[in-house]
Amino acid sequence: MNERPPIESARVNGSRLQNRIEQLAGIGTTRLAFSKADVKGREIVIGMMTEIGLDVRIDPAGNILGRRSRHTQNPVVLCGSHIDTVQNGGRFDGILGSLAAIESAATLQEMDYVMQHPLEIVIFANEEGQSFSPLFGSRCMIGALGAEDLHIVDASGRTLAQAIADIGGDPAEIDRAARKKGEIHAFVELHIEQGGVLEDLGVPIGVVEGISGILYSDVKLTGLPRHSGTTSMNLRKDALVAASRFVLEVERASRENELCRVATVGHLEVLPNSLNIVPGIVNLTLELRDLSTEKMQGAYEYLQRQAAAIQEQMGVHFRFAERALIEPVPAEPSIMRAIQEGCRVLGLRSHQMPSGAGHDAQMIARIAPVGMIFVPSVAGISHSEAEFTEGEDCVHGANVLLQTILRVDSLS
Amino acid sequence: MNERPPIESARVNGSRLQNRIEQLAGIGTTRLAFSKADVKGREIVIGMMTEIGLDVRIDPAGNILGRRSRHTQNPVVLCGSHIDTVQNGGRFDGILGSLAAIESAATLQEMDYVMQHPLEIVIFANEEGQSFSPLFGSRCMIGALGAEDLHIVDASGRTLAQAIADIGGDPAEIDRAARKKGEIHAFVELHIEQGGVLEDLGVPIGVVEGISGILYSDVKLTGLPRHSGTTSMNLRKDALVAASRFVLEVERASRENELCRVATVGHLEVLPNSLNIVPGIVNLTLELRDLSTEKMQGAYEYLQRQAAAIQEQMGVHFRFAERALIEPVPAEPSIMRAIQEGCRVLGLRSHQMPSGAGHDAQMIARIAPVGMIFVPSVAGISHSEAEFTEGEDCVHGANVLLQTILRVDSLS
Repeated sequence: MNERPPIESARVNGSRLQNRIEQLAGIGTTRLAFSKADVKGREIVIGMMTEIGLDVRIDPAGNILGRRSRHTQNPVVLCGSHIDTVQNGGRFDGILGSLAAIESAATLQEMDYVMQHPLEIVIFANEEGQSFSPLFGSRCMIGALGAEDLHIVDASGRTLAQAIADIGGDPAEIDRAARKKGEIHAFVELHIEQGGVLEDLGVPIGVVEGISGILYSDVKLTGLPRHSGTTSMNLRKDALVAASRFVLEVERASRENELCRVATVGHLEVLPNSLNIVPGIVNLTLELRDLSTEKMQGAYEYLQRQAAAIQEQMGVHFRFAERALIEPVPAEPSIMRAIQEGCRVLGLRSHQMPSGAGHDAQMIARIAPVGMIFVPSVAGISHSEAEFTEGEDCVHGANVLLQTILRVDSLS
Repeated sequence: MNERPPIESARVNGSRLQNRIEQLAGIGTTRLAFSKADVKGREIVIGMMTEIGLDVRIDPAGNILGRRSRHTQNPVVLCGSHIDTVQNGGRFDGILGSLAAIESAATLQEMDYVMQHPLEIVIFANEEGQSFSPLFGSRCMIGALGAEDLHIVDASGRTLAQAIADIGGDPAEIDRAARKKGEIHAFVELHIEQGGVLEDLGVPIGVVEGISGILYSDVKLTGLPRHSGTTSMNLRKDALVAASRFVLEVERASRENELCRVATVGHLEVLPNSLNIVPGIVNLTLELRDLSTEKMQGAYEYLQRQAAAIQEQMGVHFRFAERALIEPVPAEPSIMRAIQEGCRVLGLRSHQMPSGAGHDAQMIARIAPVGMIFVPSVAGISHSEAEFTEGEDCVHGANVLLQTILRVDSLS
């Protein structure tokens, strides 16, 4: 066995990484999970993993796993992302993290570098959840899927069990996809930011401090639908005027009052939505995201108070129905430090930031320490064919991932 | 011929009016124009008109006309409304004005009262325009329908020509439905208010000073659709936040700044309208109503300036496309005075007010002086089965109509 080379000088092969990105994009960027296009993408990635000498298998959930070496029974350093896409998705979302993980493994193979914790590459099944629910593969890996879920059908009538079988999984053995606490030393995922923060700051690397929690609430406003020509302004109970005041309160709560990181009304519908009827009902969805559950709850209570004040003034009734609370997930501080140290070695500036989007890491965090690395998304665009990350930034991200893997390996 | 009785003592038969309202409501309150239910309602009304000795005919447009006497060639006092309804409409919209006109004619028959200008009752065809366009019968009466319009088809594929024939009209002779200037001495219409102003004031009679004009404009706001979790507040161009600011400006322009009588955003749609995407596009419809075209135009220009300021601040683009400008129609002052005099004789308080809704009177105004009388709508509700006007108010309205007919008759 070779002597360990100094890890600080380890670098991925940037052009090989770029070629792999091109290769996957070459078959199209609509690869909905469990579709034929997804299977084709998976075959390409399995080929890449086999080619560099990984022991490749598909777990019962359909996650693709590739181990660098089995000559130790130590817990693994797990590294990877996903390659399924949304409809007309991009070339980088999930893909960069998947291929950079493979490239890191390839580099370590070439270095013949022996890790204390074997490197295991993972390509999670159905992260996007365009059919069934998102974060599917990682959800199975933490044992959070029940046998009853296998009977769920997608829009085409296919059961989840059949979908899993279609990508080479084994639905009858789905429980065996679960990993126990202690089996994973750490999970590290590189991902595009999908926002514009890094580009705006001009910083190439984001050190994710945690994945934001989400509080969703449905809000129904009930006023009085009335003839717009005959109902004078002072006799109106206009649900859309009340909703407009509320939307501005939501924005103010986050932007000015900083009660939570982001606050959004993304969905709003007006009833009867006729040009000559004063709106009688508005249904909207409130979404709050933050790394702190307390901050989300505080913002939610604040907005309910603001709504009560609008209701009092306007006579338009507000009804809140909390739909879901997804708890935030903090990154492991020692992994964050490893990422920062990697940036230092590579001479790259970094910015500590939350992840606003959900990622498989938030599932894996329930059974293992996790860390995430972000690279800039041009104009913050994602889930679109216009999604783009500069080649240089992709390579920077892959090198930080490699440096992080090497550093995490030696954490106790 | 009898001597004329003093007109001040003339009163309609309130219970007979109520019975007629009950009779028409008894066949249901969904009588879409040109439908079988509409024909059934028309037959009932034709029966009522024939029963009191009017000379009844259907003009080529399908308007039902009933003259009290033909023993003078003087221009007529035209009086009436419509009996077609919207889907699940009410018992009073159009119907009260139609039946009160018939009741007024019946009272004059009983009085054997000879007018200088023969009274002619009109039941306009297709006022609501649930098929084809609204104010159809009155539009034909002013000669504003072209032969080319007869080929238009409704949702069921029936041509307008066929629809007219189905109610006893004569599409081939449609031009002959037109009346010339000078043929109508005055047109008077009683109608429910369809708003809550009279109820709010506790006043039984509204003297309509004019029918509001309407300015419709489509407004498209274009921001940036972005992931709601990853896009920080300061990097957003949220079309819904911009639209909310605009909706509040619209309300303020009318309610506080009094730039026009009413201003409404009744229709608004969000794209992509997903709970986790910052809204990229909002389409909304702006509606301004006033008795003054200048005020509507002024309010419109003001709102475009406000939109430009929001665009400047937020980077969300506004595009305005004026869809229609319907000119306001003033009521004839001498007819308004006749109505006020009738109220005084009857000991009824009255309130001078605009009509916010459109009515056949706004068409007839192009060829004759017009006046309208309003009675209160409970809770301002109309175009609904919950539409209601107190029996006493119906009778008050009919008596004011009768008094107005008598007074208008003697105007030079």
